[in-house]
Amino acid sequence: MLQRYFPILEWGRTYDRPALTSDLMAAVIVTIMLIPQSLAYAMLAGLPPVVGLYASILPLIAYALFGTSRTLAVGPVAVISLMTASAAGAVAAPGSVEYLEAAITLAALSGVMLAVLGLLRLGFLANLLSHPVISGFISASGILIATSQIKHILGVTAGGETWPEMLAALAGAMGNINLPTLAIGIPASLFLFWVRKGAKPALMKLGLGPRAAEMTAKAGPVLAVAVTILAVIAFGLEARGVSVVGAIPSGLPPFALPSTDLALIEVLWVPALLISIIGFVESVSVAQTLAAKRRQRIAPDQELIGLGASNIAAALSGGYPVTGGFARSVVNFDAGAQTPAAGAYTAVGIALASLFLTPLLFNLPNATLAATIIVAVLSLVDLKTPGRLWAYSKADFAAHAVTIAITLLAGVELGVIAGVAVGLLLYLWRASRPHAAIVGRVPGTEHFRNVERHQVLTLPHLLSIRIDESLTYLNARWLEEYVLEQVAERPPLRHVILMCSAVNAIDASGLESLEAINHRLADGGVKLHLSEVKGPVMDRLKRAHFLDDLSGKVFLSQNKAFGDLANDTGEAPDADDPMEARGLI
Amino acid sequence: MLQRYFPILEWGRTYDRPALTSDLMAAVIVTIMLIPQSLAYAMLAGLPPVVGLYASILPLIAYALFGTSRTLAVGPVAVISLMTASAAGAVAAPGSVEYLEAAITLAALSGVMLAVLGLLRLGFLANLLSHPVISGFISASGILIATSQIKHILGVTAGGETWPEMLAALAGAMGNINLPTLAIGIPASLFLFWVRKGAKPALMKLGLGPRAAEMTAKAGPVLAVAVTILAVIAFGLEARGVSVVGAIPSGLPPFALPSTDLALIEVLWVPALLISIIGFVESVSVAQTLAAKRRQRIAPDQELIGLGASNIAAALSGGYPVTGGFARSVVNFDAGAQTPAAGAYTAVGIALASLFLTPLLFNLPNATLAATIIVAVLSLVDLKTPGRLWAYSKADFAAHAVTIAITLLAGVELGVIAGVAVGLLLYLWRASRPHAAIVGRVPGTEHFRNVERHQVLTLPHLLSIRIDESLTYLNARWLEEYVLEQVAERPPLRHVILMCSAVNAIDASGLESLEAINHRLADGGVKLHLSEVKGPVMDRLKRAHFLDDLSGKVFLSQNKAFGDLANDTGEAPDADDPMEARGLI
Repeated sequence: MLQRYFPILEWGRTYDRPALTSDLMAAVIVTIMLIPQSLAYAMLAGLPPVVGLYASILPLIAYALFGTSRTLAVGPVAVISLMTASAAGAVAAPGSVEYLEAAITLAALSGVMLAVLGLLRLGFLANLLSHPVISGFISASGILIATSQIKHILGVTAGGETWPEMLAALAGAMGNINLPTLAIGIPASLFLFWVRKGAKPALMKLGLGPRAAEMTAKAGPVLAVAVTILAVIAFGLEARGVSVVGAIPSGLPPFALPSTDLALIEVLWVPALLISIIGFVESVSVAQTLAAKRRQRIAPDQELIGLGASNIAAALSGGYPVTGGFARSVVNFDAGAQTPAAGAYTAVGIALASLFLTPLLFNLPNATLAATIIVAVLSLVDLKTPGRLWAYSKADFAAHAVTIAITLLAGVELGVIAGVAVGLLLYLWRASRPHAAIVGRVPGTEHFRNVERHQVLTLPHLLSIRIDESLTYLNARWLEEYVLEQVAERPPLRHVILMCSAVNAIDASGLESLEAINHRLADGGVKLHLSEVKGPVMDRLKRAHFLDDLSGKVFLSQNKAFGDLANDTGEAPDADDPMEARGLI
Repeated sequence: MLQRYFPILEWGRTYDRPALTSDLMAAVIVTIMLIPQSLAYAMLAGLPPVVGLYASILPLIAYALFGTSRTLAVGPVAVISLMTASAAGAVAAPGSVEYLEAAITLAALSGVMLAVLGLLRLGFLANLLSHPVISGFISASGILIATSQIKHILGVTAGGETWPEMLAALAGAMGNINLPTLAIGIPASLFLFWVRKGAKPALMKLGLGPRAAEMTAKAGPVLAVAVTILAVIAFGLEARGVSVVGAIPSGLPPFALPSTDLALIEVLWVPALLISIIGFVESVSVAQTLAAKRRQRIAPDQELIGLGASNIAAALSGGYPVTGGFARSVVNFDAGAQTPAAGAYTAVGIALASLFLTPLLFNLPNATLAATIIVAVLSLVDLKTPGRLWAYSKADFAAHAVTIAITLLAGVELGVIAGVAVGLLLYLWRASRPHAAIVGRVPGTEHFRNVERHQVLTLPHLLSIRIDESLTYLNARWLEEYVLEQVAERPPLRHVILMCSAVNAIDASGLESLEAINHRLADGGVKLHLSEVKGPVMDRLKRAHFLDDLSGKVFLSQNKAFGDLANDTGEAPDADDPMEARGLI
């Protein structure tokens, strides 16, 4: 029990020197990768760079205590940073104390929500985000994020919340381009693009082994950071209009308390919920993928608790919302991380950086950070999915397209909500008209098949309907309409048999519909029968009055029902037919 | 095509003298019933009594043109009046011009929403209201309405929005009871209760036929109205504190235009949507019940258009939201209405009453109207349903109980929303963890059954999983977790067969999960196979890349899959086994 909530009790027990070595090795590589990332994502979130470092220390230790993935690397990520900027930007101006307070409060709310969802085992709510919606949201966010960073490459000021606004602002600012900034931003971007694909083969040509080459390539952003800092110093670029990070306070994160201002919480709870769910979905997908590679398991409900603890830790140490990042976790995995302890060691690395490295970052150009972000997020933009969805399912394509369009035109929050709403509406629409078939007997057999697809035997006074779905409130109205319509079309009808072989459950609304059908058919002189009712469904029906009121009978098999009722054309009463009485359960 | 949108073109063509006679007879009886009802429900809605009359003229004619039910009687109803009071009361004080304007705007919004839902064929959205939620909402509304009218019986002033508030206000006003009002209200209530059950047998004892007795009994409220008016005049009760209806302007409804104030619409659109859906559900249930009795059909999407037209007509003639009423429609049906023309004749009757009867109603005590309302709505309170639901399904009981509690404690709008939310959450929770079974071969047969329920043959290197549900985004995550967990528990595994006999559809998320399962199993050296994939599902899978990437094969039957893979324990490559190659579709 205790082990379930503290997975560290499980892996900690067998922790040994080889695991320690592997974890330390992975931690060094992830730390090197995380320093520029955390500064860049903080900038994307509209926060001081140091907040990105703070969000990369305590949250990692919290996840190491509560998380179930051995290799997930928690910290600031691009999409959540954008969502933070959008939510905090709605209540305060970037750079203000209120803005930072809003970001911290978002982390606190998100942490509490995740933990509560985990304790209540409500992780299934994340299912509402279908793959097409997530993929559309991530692509659109990637486009939004990349566009928002172009101003740093150009050295201009340009605002805008939505994509068209951003593009218009950029177009309007084209006259003010700062050439020294462009001279930093363009080469840095090109170099980082090249690093993603070209650095590994190049390093292997220089004689490094494949794994060493891959790990060294991950230090590419650090190289870009170092070179551009030196360039700013060497050519005095700050004086020539190149915007730099500036003074970052040295030291460990302060202890912070999130706001308890109810008015603020009322505004932020919806964005916090969306941040929680998007963050959980992103994180759990990565964790599952990596765990499966080593035939390990993660526990999704405990993951909610782990991410909740991370975000609460972020809030208490002046950070902002965090989650498990895709690229970083893959690096952690490839670098050989064996246990969540690797994350804790990364936290120590970032803490050391906060203590000693920050003065060196004074001259880091924002253009370099923007290049880091652009290169990272453009890989999120998925150009293949729309075509694949269009070919496979128009409904899924619609959900994908709506999510992309609303995210670009109306922002991240409405984008997610619209995607969920469209997906749910389409699902409910389909669930409200399930498949059913009029069936008849295949001659010479006991099988019953769809009359539209097979040559089967039917009788004019007897209608057999097979329902291929559980009877729930979503399709209860459809069931009534469908059965009554079929009956209205067949005046000589005396008996209707509902074949329930595919009915796994009947809820109270489904039961009411069956009762209504029974009464309405009886009013018209038609009897209702059921056949092949599953055991658990029958047990439940026995707890209601429906079986007592049923005008017809319940038959064990459709064949038995068809056989017994075949000769009962309604001319004579059938109550004294012993064959039918035996068919009744 | 034209006939679909104007059902009058169908029944009007065969309209003859017998139908005319029947319709006129029904119209007279419904008119007599509707006059006190429309005044009473307008009072319940917090509106001047004449608004109830206005809402009973043009809307009926609009429904006669566009509606598909032959016997539905449209007009003001109790629950919708309460919802109107709640929504209008949130923006203005009852009695003010703004309050009336809000009520008219609600009718306009509701009319447009209903018509749009009908034109877009979105009637399925009403499915979101499950039977337990509707029943809970109607019961709780009945309690709220009855409680809200007690003040008129006691002759006190008492406010309150929620049930506890109303009860507290009534308790506080107990010292101010007006005895003359009580002397009207109590006998009127008792008389009306008696009329519901006792009048018909009493009239039959006096020699009337059963049908004539029933119809005469429907005039009971009119008798109560007449007697109490005479009592007020005879004893000068108005001077002794009995509140009366007062002056009602004579004449036909004025032409009115709903507000186009966007701020007002922004506040009212959610209540208007709820009024639309509740009204539609109530109306369509009655219409279906009555149509089935005569083996007629109604068209739900056209009903939306009919009710939409009625509400737009209400808005344009100074009325408020209307729908098909249960009691009134049953009377119309029993009185022999043959076509929607009966509704148009009723409208003429009410118009005549508006022109000539209103001066007679000056001394009508509000206590009589309150008694009419209380007697009508208490029959809506359903005391049996909670027990039946508890016995049948705890989930449905939960939705029912939450709806009742929230409606009583927080009002009608939150009550409906909470009921829908709870129902949907429970549905999604169940949909996110469908039924699946590990299956094995029944010895000596080709059948495969659940290993937990039957003695079946399984093999350690081969796992067969039967999924009893379509693969959708709601259960995609579950599918991954379930399959990977089953595989993680069985280290010697080489093959997994997913038996898809109950899979009616696979959406894009389900497909992605299958792809993820395929890749993750392949990483662990396990092959994924499918068996018994349905034709339409297979057609769709062929439009994706999944089948090319599948590590295993697609078998026509589970038996074939089991047989072919039984000897492939993974020691030798199997690509050159001709038996398996043939199994591949």
